[in-house]
Amino acid sequence: MTPSATPAYRRLSVEERRSQLLDAALTLFAHRAPEDVSLDDVAEAAGVSRPLVYRYFPGGKQQLYEAALRSAAEELRHCFDEPLQGPLLPRLSRALDRYLGFVDEHDTGFSALLQGGSVVETSRTTAIVDGVRRAAAEHIYRHLGVSGPGPRLRMTVRTWITAVEAASLIWLDEDKQPPVEELRDWLVEQFVAVLTVTASRDPQTAAVVGALAGDGRD
Amino acid sequence: MTPSATPAYRRLSVEERRSQLLDAALTLFAHRAPEDVSLDDVAEAAGVSRPLVYRYFPGGKQQLYEAALRSAAEELRHCFDEPLQGPLLPRLSRALDRYLGFVDEHDTGFSALLQGGSVVETSRTTAIVDGVRRAAAEHIYRHLGVSGPGPRLRMTVRTWITAVEAASLIWLDEDKQPPVEELRDWLVEQFVAVLTVTASRDPQTAAVVGALAGDGRD
Repeated sequence: MTPSATPAYRRLSVEERRSQLLDAALTLFAHRAPEDVSLDDVAEAAGVSRPLVYRYFPGGKQQLYEAALRSAAEELRHCFDEPLQGPLLPRLSRALDRYLGFVDEHDTGFSALLQGGSVVETSRTTAIVDGVRRAAAEHIYRHLGVSGPGPRLRMTVRTWITAVEAASLIWLDEDKQPPVEELRDWLVEQFVAVLTVTASRDPQTAAVVGALAGDGRD
Repeated sequence: MTPSATPAYRRLSVEERRSQLLDAALTLFAHRAPEDVSLDDVAEAAGVSRPLVYRYFPGGKQQLYEAALRSAAEELRHCFDEPLQGPLLPRLSRALDRYLGFVDEHDTGFSALLQGGSVVETSRTTAIVDGVRRAAAEHIYRHLGVSGPGPRLRMTVRTWITAVEAASLIWLDEDKQPPVEELRDWLVEQFVAVLTVTASRDPQTAAVVGALAGDGRD
């Protein structure tokens, strides 16, 4: 970094510039509600002119918000990437560690993103968030070795995923208490507990719980 | 009902007329997303003129939607009214029966109301829905005999309430399967299970679980 370096005017490729603007937008959305972020703010944070932001996002704030949301959704999906090897619950713990790391990093933006009530909320943004939920459920079925989850197992897994989201929002709301490791362990234990309740009336879920119980032994 | 009866022109008091319009709106919102309901539809369903709907709701659709939402929120709060007597879990069962009856009756409107993504969603409507969630949590603390719930008990109860909402939406999505009585019992058992998980690291929750376990005996 010499004094003559002028990073704002460095030539970036279209993809680099786009990703620079999305990063700036995500950082802003991480600390303010979407309705409190203007294109001027994004231009200022990225050190570029407002017309340049418009050139990349001619649809204005709504388009930028959706692109930032898609980029955050992509990042969230990566949290779920976990090899299909080793005992199941530690795999879930590791995925939750990455997910909670994302929540911790993007705090306010994460709340705004999930809680709705935002002025730029539309059925398209809702669909992006629902896509992440569906991806999380699919990952869980794959790790559990279930290819055709029945309605009771589906309801249990989908309900637990919503509980994880709710717990994350409450955790942010409660100044990140309890400590993140305790929250993670609690979520893993909740997962086993809710599956166990369903197992008493669903053979498919009972088989899954049986596999979890025998898991540490092999 | 004689042929000469003209109910549309019967003189109603301001309160009666308002409540007639809200009922018509709630019925429409119960089967269509808010963005697909127009003031014309409400006027037609209530058998009144469009100007009359505007006279009562000069803010137009947004005002009518919020008023209908408030009226639904009021109805939901009544579901939680339950005497502070008798064993705890049957009290919870009865409240859930009323709540699930509401979900069953208002199906599409209930989804639209909770899922957001609606064009008329605002921070005010979000606050109305959050108020119902808070009321549900307060009812639960009162029934559990807890006056100052700590962070772990709060997180458990609030997370379970979100899980109930999610399960209701999934239940509607899955053509109301499993049967409503099974869903109710499952939710009660989930409540005990998630509290039991928290009890292992929180003395306040452990005392609550102890009281639930001893409940049938006195």
